[in-house]
Amino acid sequence: MRYQLYYWPSIQGRGEYVRLALEDAGIAYDDVARGPGGVSAMTRMMEQGDTPPFAPPFLKAGKLVIGQTANILLYLGARHGLAPKAEAGRLWVHQLQLTIADLLLEIHDTHHPLGPSLYYEDQKAPAKKRSEEFWKERVPKYLGYFESLVSDSGGTFATGRRATYVDLSLFQIIEGLRYAFPKRMQTFEREIPKLVALHDRVAARPNIKAYLESDRRIPFNEDGIFRRYKALDL
Amino acid sequence: MRYQLYYWPSIQGRGEYVRLALEDAGIAYDDVARGPGGVSAMTRMMEQGDTPPFAPPFLKAGKLVIGQTANILLYLGARHGLAPKAEAGRLWVHQLQLTIADLLLEIHDTHHPLGPSLYYEDQKAPAKKRSEEFWKERVPKYLGYFESLVSDSGGTFATGRRATYVDLSLFQIIEGLRYAFPKRMQTFEREIPKLVALHDRVAARPNIKAYLESDRRIPFNEDGIFRRYKALDL
Repeated sequence: MRYQLYYWPSIQGRGEYVRLALEDAGIAYDDVARGPGGVSAMTRMMEQGDTPPFAPPFLKAGKLVIGQTANILLYLGARHGLAPKAEAGRLWVHQLQLTIADLLLEIHDTHHPLGPSLYYEDQKAPAKKRSEEFWKERVPKYLGYFESLVSDSGGTFATGRRATYVDLSLFQIIEGLRYAFPKRMQTFEREIPKLVALHDRVAARPNIKAYLESDRRIPFNEDGIFRRYKALDL
Repeated sequence: MRYQLYYWPSIQGRGEYVRLALEDAGIAYDDVARGPGGVSAMTRMMEQGDTPPFAPPFLKAGKLVIGQTANILLYLGARHGLAPKAEAGRLWVHQLQLTIADLLLEIHDTHHPLGPSLYYEDQKAPAKKRSEEFWKERVPKYLGYFESLVSDSGGTFATGRRATYVDLSLFQIIEGLRYAFPKRMQTFEREIPKLVALHDRVAARPNIKAYLESDRRIPFNEDGIFRRYKALDL
């Protein structure tokens, strides 16, 4: 079955976690909103059907329309070799993805502490404070947690010897933090050697490597979740 | 099987969505951290085992330890009649719960826009701005979405004629917004008659009614997600 992914065409955003899974598993898909008339098609999908998504990304899988990034990965994971098939393993991997989703919202808050509907330019001072707090308290807590998991997993990935969609997402978190906060991240990486090694291992997977070199990978930019604002990196 | 729920003993917080499901379905459980030595037991659980949770709540179900609120509800839902058994329905209900989880993080941000590690007292001005934005842009978007779902569901609940854990969570959202923002919510409720009716229907369910009247229901307070700060309600 060929899937249709619906997500904003000019940013990586939350859609990127789904793209990485689709690409790594070599799954056929259309990135609908990046084609002609695609954004209108996406908007229409959000206003009709029995299961209208609150927001992109969502995935059309035959008759199913599945929204929420972690939910899409839950659906794809066990079907395409990116998560264990047994319930206990599936729940564990999904739990980690939900923790990554929480982290992502906190990353977005670093440049939008006063809310997602206002411009960054209108909240620069609180963004600076939130970024300070984020790097002082939250990054060590979240990435320290994942570093321990890799250490204790009995393998080189977050949950063991086999890569799951969580590892692909952790790759993207490292990549994104490097983009958005190059100075802070350079210093912090000393604390998370296992995660950095995991990042490199994911980047070297043939399908991921090919994807990252293709024009299917949208470059980071200041409309996405990871934004490079010098004032927040000092 | 008797379950063990682990969550902070003095707040409703994220744990409340799990408590409501356990109570409504009449499932036997221990609220471990509310018993003697319970918080230490909870902390120990986070530092050991094969699937250490990042944060409470988490549920012990036999040998399984399951973290992340929505993941716990995913596990409990189909087993205890609070979600459809078929995959499409399970994914749809879970998707809605994840959207509620996003909303909850935004509710927390109304009093903690500069980050969860700082005191409210140190971020009063940005909290006021974030609350304004939240009520202007986000509440209408989120609750308008759920109002439409109930309207279009073909029943009186979010996904049809049968209640799911999502309806219990929507009850809690309405209840919480009424507690935290009594004035704003009183005005806004005119926009969401179906959700208000759903709230009342959930509150009248025998097991929920008994729970709400019991001392197992922790009162709202200013350490939880929903906090009543007058300055944010004007």
